[in-house]
Amino acid sequence: MADRPLKELGWKTPLEAAHKPSLNQIAKTGICGIMDVISPGVPPGSDTATLALLGYDALKVYCGRGAFEAVGSSVDVLPGDVAFRCNFATVDEKLVVLDRRAGRIANEDASKLAESLQKIKLEKHLGIKFLFKNTIQHRAALVIRGPKLSTAVSGSDPERVGERVSEIKPLDESPEAKLTTEILKELMQKFHEVLKRHPVNNERVKRGLPPANIIICRGAGTIPNVKHLPEKYGINAACIAAASLIRGVCKVAGMKLIDVKGATGTPQTDFMAKAKATVQALKTNDFVLLHVKATDVASHDGNIKQKIELIEKIDSMLGYVLNNVDLDSTYLAVTADHTTSSITRNHEGDPVPIAITGPYVRCDDIEEYDERACAKGGLNRIRGVDLMPILMNLIGKTKKFGA
Amino acid sequence: MADRPLKELGWKTPLEAAHKPSLNQIAKTGICGIMDVISPGVPPGSDTATLALLGYDALKVYCGRGAFEAVGSSVDVLPGDVAFRCNFATVDEKLVVLDRRAGRIANEDASKLAESLQKIKLEKHLGIKFLFKNTIQHRAALVIRGPKLSTAVSGSDPERVGERVSEIKPLDESPEAKLTTEILKELMQKFHEVLKRHPVNNERVKRGLPPANIIICRGAGTIPNVKHLPEKYGINAACIAAASLIRGVCKVAGMKLIDVKGATGTPQTDFMAKAKATVQALKTNDFVLLHVKATDVASHDGNIKQKIELIEKIDSMLGYVLNNVDLDSTYLAVTADHTTSSITRNHEGDPVPIAITGPYVRCDDIEEYDERACAKGGLNRIRGVDLMPILMNLIGKTKKFGA
Repeated sequence: MADRPLKELGWKTPLEAAHKPSLNQIAKTGICGIMDVISPGVPPGSDTATLALLGYDALKVYCGRGAFEAVGSSVDVLPGDVAFRCNFATVDEKLVVLDRRAGRIANEDASKLAESLQKIKLEKHLGIKFLFKNTIQHRAALVIRGPKLSTAVSGSDPERVGERVSEIKPLDESPEAKLTTEILKELMQKFHEVLKRHPVNNERVKRGLPPANIIICRGAGTIPNVKHLPEKYGINAACIAAASLIRGVCKVAGMKLIDVKGATGTPQTDFMAKAKATVQALKTNDFVLLHVKATDVASHDGNIKQKIELIEKIDSMLGYVLNNVDLDSTYLAVTADHTTSSITRNHEGDPVPIAITGPYVRCDDIEEYDERACAKGGLNRIRGVDLMPILMNLIGKTKKFGA
Repeated sequence: MADRPLKELGWKTPLEAAHKPSLNQIAKTGICGIMDVISPGVPPGSDTATLALLGYDALKVYCGRGAFEAVGSSVDVLPGDVAFRCNFATVDEKLVVLDRRAGRIANEDASKLAESLQKIKLEKHLGIKFLFKNTIQHRAALVIRGPKLSTAVSGSDPERVGERVSEIKPLDESPEAKLTTEILKELMQKFHEVLKRHPVNNERVKRGLPPANIIICRGAGTIPNVKHLPEKYGINAACIAAASLIRGVCKVAGMKLIDVKGATGTPQTDFMAKAKATVQALKTNDFVLLHVKATDVASHDGNIKQKIELIEKIDSMLGYVLNNVDLDSTYLAVTADHTTSSITRNHEGDPVPIAITGPYVRCDDIEEYDERACAKGGLNRIRGVDLMPILMNLIGKTKKFGA
């Protein structure tokens, strides 16, 4: 949701340009500030950002994105498994990447392709199992299970269009890294063979769509061993998010994942369904994380107009929440997990705005929820890892340090 | 440049009292804040401050000033060498310090004296080499080279006029500290013997100047092993500074040292020559540190009027830079490496003002560059170690943490 000032908007940010009465109401009745989700200047990933916002020291506990993505996609990740984040992508005959997202392939096509890939048998590595599952659009998760695996392996995703698929390499000298590299290479090779002659792709080419003829992978990871939120704070915690990465982090944090019909993790998500589910979830949970991916998608696409429209939809969603929870006993905090620049189309290290409203909050004189108005607020400049203790303290769930 | 409010200035700071249109332009078009270069209340040294401003955790990597001073004076410091920061000073016959700077001895005199000192032969410690070099005015560097040396040794500088030269002592029980103490004692003794009957000093006394009849030393240090900026951020980085301590830190950080004719590290430095060199250096470097020592010198002398004049010269220098770089593709950050009080004449722990201008910066409504105006700015309060990640993020040189 957060961005930098844009020439196209008369040097306003999309948040500053949007019509957002509900966000402003939260700012007006609450305490505002800016927040370095990781630390000043450091662009957070969505995974490290969510870890920090849930109160974990991401710099210490983070061990790769792949495992979160898999967990969040209901792929069963066990300790010792190595998980990867995958994309369905389009390559030419020389394995040069033409589209890293295979035209943001529809879930339906991706599901059919994933089903075929899951049937593949590994020949060179007996005793090794794998799980492959598509998540949203071009996104997918791969989990490798077996003895003596390692996360010290590079992926095949060149992360840039026009470059050849990267060679998978071990990142240290261990036999585990070597073994994992070989398994991953065999899998990627077999996936490519199946995909390039798959009927779904033939059909896509006929329809003028880029074929999803390869899987590219990155972000080898395992599950971090963190104390669950219910144990850490004595709370029931739930997550309403469609993006599998966010769901994964929340599950690792011991939160319940609430499925919402129509929530897709895309700009077409059903904002109102998420609002209703949040109000419902707050009846039985002490803490509910409501996450919207849509604005980030618009930023990565550099679509400023869509970003503003999506902020306005988020605003309506929050309007429903404001109107349907008991504001005398409920705290609402609104923030972004990172700044995404519509110009660079990347996550950036600029701080995000934060506003917290609820009983006995030291509300300030800020009247608008945006990057620059909130910078003058009563919270000043905090860090992502501080947010959860602040919220838990407000609801009386923190323990005194000392006596 | 930063100071505290002064009665003499109607309780304004020198920065608040100075005429500074260019500094104000940077504040007006940019984002402002205050910065604890090390941490709140901690007075930074010039070395630890510069380490922090270059993005290093000074609390972890700092290992004494001496090595930086030596490196910055083009003295070749090798790993294992122990380096000291030295002053030419004036003592009476009982070794009581009359002037810690020998009347801020001119470079010419100091060079002649240093040449004689370098010729001295150590008698008690064979196999030990030393390098002695004068830098600016009364400042000099001493490097001791040999096996089994230690930085755990106190200096001879009492750091106060009217006190006797301090006895050099080992700071731990190790044989290395004992050996280094003995070597340093022998050197200081021999230096004093040569200096007190040196023709240059006889000449100085005739001219009514204090003789530079002793070397006092402090700040034993070695070279810290830090990742060079070019490697850390993928940038070309250059330093325009005359003070050897700053040059040393920059060299240790892997920056190119650019020599500027007329840049002296004193109030008489050629500000415009430094401005021109900066504009030139920005053509081939991603990052240029332009450092001015002069305001710090005026503060240590308690010379408020001169401090204001020097701030105004810095302002003119920055005016040239502003008028001669492409502001659509260049970021300018202006700050101080520490507050120096014109009253206590010491570095103080008050935060320093900071302003950053450039494309897509979230500019705020601050219109003046000074300690109190900037405190209301959009950066709020950051730390010195955060500045480099913030700047590197703006120029697209930071890596995302996470995915």
